[in-house]
Amino acid sequence: MRTATYIGDHTVQTAEATPVQPERGQVQIAVAYTGLCGTDLHIIHGSMDGRVTRPLAFGHEMSGTIAAIGESVTEWAVGDAVTVMPLQWDGSCPACQAGHSHICQNLVFVGIDSPGSLQELWTVPEDLLVRLPAGISLKHAALAEPVAVAVHDVRRSELAAGDKVVVVGGGPIGVLIATVARHAGAEVTVIEPEPGRRAQIAGLGFATIDPRAEDQVEVVEKWTDGAGADVVFEVSGAAQAVLGATALAKVRGTLVVVAIHPVPREIDLQRLFWRELRILGARVYQRTDFEEAVRLLGEGVIPADELISQVVPLDGIPAAVDDLENGRALKVLVAVGAEE
Amino acid sequence: MRTATYIGDHTVQTAEATPVQPERGQVQIAVAYTGLCGTDLHIIHGSMDGRVTRPLAFGHEMSGTIAAIGESVTEWAVGDAVTVMPLQWDGSCPACQAGHSHICQNLVFVGIDSPGSLQELWTVPEDLLVRLPAGISLKHAALAEPVAVAVHDVRRSELAAGDKVVVVGGGPIGVLIATVARHAGAEVTVIEPEPGRRAQIAGLGFATIDPRAEDQVEVVEKWTDGAGADVVFEVSGAAQAVLGATALAKVRGTLVVVAIHPVPREIDLQRLFWRELRILGARVYQRTDFEEAVRLLGEGVIPADELISQVVPLDGIPAAVDDLENGRALKVLVAVGAEE
Repeated sequence: MRTATYIGDHTVQTAEATPVQPERGQVQIAVAYTGLCGTDLHIIHGSMDGRVTRPLAFGHEMSGTIAAIGESVTEWAVGDAVTVMPLQWDGSCPACQAGHSHICQNLVFVGIDSPGSLQELWTVPEDLLVRLPAGISLKHAALAEPVAVAVHDVRRSELAAGDKVVVVGGGPIGVLIATVARHAGAEVTVIEPEPGRRAQIAGLGFATIDPRAEDQVEVVEKWTDGAGADVVFEVSGAAQAVLGATALAKVRGTLVVVAIHPVPREIDLQRLFWRELRILGARVYQRTDFEEAVRLLGEGVIPADELISQVVPLDGIPAAVDDLENGRALKVLVAVGAEE
Repeated sequence: MRTATYIGDHTVQTAEATPVQPERGQVQIAVAYTGLCGTDLHIIHGSMDGRVTRPLAFGHEMSGTIAAIGESVTEWAVGDAVTVMPLQWDGSCPACQAGHSHICQNLVFVGIDSPGSLQELWTVPEDLLVRLPAGISLKHAALAEPVAVAVHDVRRSELAAGDKVVVVGGGPIGVLIATVARHAGAEVTVIEPEPGRRAQIAGLGFATIDPRAEDQVEVVEKWTDGAGADVVFEVSGAAQAVLGATALAKVRGTLVVVAIHPVPREIDLQRLFWRELRILGARVYQRTDFEEAVRLLGEGVIPADELISQVVPLDGIPAAVDDLENGRALKVLVAVGAEE
């Protein structure tokens, strides 16, 4: 079978490999599509070399159908359409014991810490599978993982119908959060400096702010009648955005930090104190989020076709990475074992 | 009557003044004691000159007895022992409308934004009064305001009995938070670099960490069997302490920012994300906190005698300020109309 493999030194290679046969409690999936995300770019850039064993067939956003099942697997059959929730926890650490297994202190993230879905045939433990609803396209289903992130972030924010929400950063996760928040009944404004992205977001029916041309605090104050936003999602990863985000929130408002900030960032703690704000970290998802994500995709709530800007072959990853980094693509799917 | 007044230029003066007579809905209090706090030091240093109208008889931590009542006051009588919750809200801003009047967007903090309790006779609206329980000493009752801060902070943290709590900074508010948290059933460790303070805190029965001699993360990890603390209170105001505080909290743990940080501070957002932490701002108190504070003082839960290191006359404020700033005093009371 063919795989796409990170071999170090900024290099992704297509390679032939022998498929892993499913053992007891495992299934082998014929992977249809694998999405590329920001973490994959970090892997390719070598910034995760300390964590990633090379060569690694990476990839953790996917869809496919079951090709073979191992012994003792009774809930799944060959041909079932599935996606994978790529988390494995130890069940014994303090976080797991406290019921937070999705952020287990020894979490294995499949596709980063172990082989992922950029393989034509991918073998995983059956308890990672999530069933796809009838009728969903495998292209759309490949977005389940990032949609689950958005569902988790929105759930963590505890936003209520009627809330006014600001999403800082209009990349794929930002757009998904905006979509899920709107579906939950919130009014949403997205702050995004890049004109092309901003136009696309406006085309999806969201209010937008250009932070370079407008005073975002003034716009939000006016929109909320002087109160400030109920919830702000920081999805940009930019230092200036974090520093300014607290000024957008109402008294007792919530700032959810979704983006990865590899170095400490300045936060306006005076504002945090003055308005009794709440800042929440949000990471990955729980099974309930994944199931909700698949449901939302099946119901057509997610603008999947608008988000998927390219579908490339397995050997098209280097060019796609270049497009992603230069703002020429939003969400790229790799057609691992499916047509482009 | 005599007052102590900030006249600008780092100067506090004792002055004669004519008492304000209580009008409709007001009471005049014969002030017994007024405590000095960090905010008072900021006023004296001129760092709040943009906010403070000079001359100002400041002071907002106090106890006293009612000396006269205005028209229509029926709930209070001359001689009643009282303290004052020094907040006035407008009732109409978005924060008030949402039920958060204690952090009204146009809050008047009495003793900062209007005359305070460093006056022998102090006239305030009757709805600011809080009744003192029988038998409480007026010296102890003068701590009601800082105790209310601690009660509010602990309530905001949502800590539960059995929780493991770290208090970063062992000044008066840190010690009060530690005391209130312990009374709520938590186990408490206080991080404090100053040896004298640390010894005093240990004398009150708290575990302590010297952050200069010990690896605080290692100590907390060991204490919590590798989980991290349930709740961390940042009461130090120091940049390094804030940066290190997130490393002390467990998965889904809470960091409450109590100290005032006048400039933005670096926060480890990677840790916030990784452990899905929660950072909460906590400011002043609500009436329920003040009533609980007075109850705790009346029941002897608060180590008031250990905290009150000096009682000085009205003209002793400049010397007391010097002692506070050089670590020679913990909590100073000014005997406004009472014996020292």
